[in-house]
Parts: sequence; C-alpha cells; structure tokens
Amino acid sequence: MIQSTKRIIGLDPGLRLCGFGVIDVAGNQFSWVDHGVIKVPTDRPIEQRLSFLFSNLQEVVQQFQPTETSLEKIFFNSNAQTSMLLGMARGVVALVPGLLNIPLFEYAPNLIKKSVVGVGHADKQQVQKMVSIILNPQKPITADSADALAAAICHAGHSNFR
Amino acid sequence: MIQSTKRIIGLDPGLRLCGFGVIDVAGNQFSWVDHGVIKVPTDRPIEQRLSFLFSNLQEVVQQFQPTETSLEKIFFNSNAQTSMLLGMARGVVALVPGLLNIPLFEYAPNLIKKSVVGVGHADKQQVQKMVSIILNPQKPITADSADALAAAICHAGHSNFR
Repeated sequence: MIQSTKRIIGLDPGLRLCGFGVIDVAGNQFSWVDHGVIKVPTDRPIEQRLSFLFSNLQEVVQQFQPTETSLEKIFFNSNAQTSMLLGMARGVVALVPGLLNIPLFEYAPNLIKKSVVGVGHADKQQVQKMVSIILNPQKPITADSADALAAAICHAGHSNFR
Repeated sequence: MIQSTKRIIGLDPGLRLCGFGVIDVAGNQFSWVDHGVIKVPTDRPIEQRLSFLFSNLQEVVQQFQPTETSLEKIFFNSNAQTSMLLGMARGVVALVPGLLNIPLFEYAPNLIKKSVVGVGHADKQQVQKMVSIILNPQKPITADSADALAAAICHAGHSNFR
C-alpha cells in the first residue's frame, strides 16, 4: 500500500514573534523537518511590521513547500489593543498559505495541548517537552516554536483520523 | 508657490465588504477621484477570503497609486469571533500599502466623524450626506464607501494641519 506523505506547517502568529514548525506525516508516523521563529522588528510602523512578517513567512513557506497549514484558534484577551495587533498578524499569516492555495486548518488551544500532552490544560513547559519527545528534533525546540510544532502535530492526528 | 498634490486612499476594512475612497488634496482643496467596495465571497474558507481581499485591494491601489493611506482605528466589539475576523481583514488591508511603502495613518472613529460632520457622534446617514457635500462626486456615495472617504478626508485635514 502506498502511503502519501503530507507536509504540515504549524504557525503561531504574532506581531513580535511568529513561530513555525514543519513536520512530515506518513500514516501515523511523524517526522520533524525544521522549526524556527520570525522575529519582527518592533520599532517600525504597523504596515511595515506586517510587510516584514508577510515577506519572511512567504520565504519559509516557499522553502519548505508544505501541503497543509495548521493554526491555533485564538480567543481575544481583555486588552483590545493587543487583540487588534494579534488579529492583524493572524490575518497576514493566514494570507500566505491562502495565496498559494494551501488549505488552512484551525484548532482550539485546548485541543492542541491535548493532542500533544494528553490533557487540555497543560502548561507551556509540558508542551515543549512532549513536542521534543514526539518529534526528536535535530535542534532544541524553543518555547517560541513549540506551539507551532504542537499545532502541526494536532493537525496530523486529526487529519489522519478523518 | 508650488503646492504638491497628495493622493489619499481611505479604507474601511471588512471580510465581507471592504470600502475604499480616493481623493486628491492640494493645500486645503479636496477633490474626489473614485470610490467603491470590494465584495468578498463569504462562502469560501478564511484563507481564500483573505487572499481575495488582498489581490483585489492590490489592484485598486495599483490603479490609483495613492501616496498615503488612512484607516479607521477599530475597537473590538463584544463578539470575539467577529472581532477576530475583522482584525484579520484589517491586517491584510494594512499589508497592501505596507508592501508598497505607502505610509498608513490611523484615526479614531469619532475624530473621523468630527472631521466630516463637525461632531464626533454623527450617525452613518449624516456622514454619507456630508461626504457627498464636501466632495461632490460624479457617482452616488454608498453607505459602504462613505466611511472610507470620510477616513481620507480626516487624514487630509490633519496632515495639512501638521
């Protein structure tokens, strides 16, 4: 039986740091490809920060050629200004796969944590540790890219199940 | 004395309708150039809606070649899902001038209304009527593009004042 390989990029959007994590999936085997963080300069006007984020994420996506994108569903926090900036960053991040016709899937934060740690209320350290154990990557997983890799793992599990 | 002309595009972002309004400004003279609405298909996945909005707005900006962009500052409403979608649309809308190095200016809704109607708590009909009187456009101003033109007028007034 031939099993097609999918390449999933998980993204953790932000207007300061945008984490990404790329994994290959064949059946129920996951393999780590790469992960990293786009660091957006914070001393520029908003339209230039979005432009920086867009161009750098386009490069990452062109480099790794993912077939699917996974994103954490965000619920806004009580700070309207923070929420606004996060929403704007998220729009630009979702646009990049959109322009390349790469389908986008969204998962609630608790479902992502559950996929990785087994429970929905895990803390950041537990997520980071479990992502490392599951993927056994060739470089240390930083806190900034752990959530992106966790989103990718979550999508791998759910899309196989369907 | 030579007075340089500025071309301002005002934008009213949304993931269903995105209004735009273009005016030329020389000193304290405003002249209407065009206005319209980008209608985004709502039956597509989010990444494709953002992609549609981006591509169509890029065409509008390339057609009119504005030198400055004006945008209404948004404060989120109580519906988190609506706020999220609006924030994402706004990010994509702000990205378009960002990629072309066109500076973006943001104004609070009340300041925009005050610039056009004279008071900060005007209703939509008053804004639409006053925008028509100020700009005397060659086609009727729709409700969808009135806010975009009002944002452009607001920026024209404030940037002249500085």
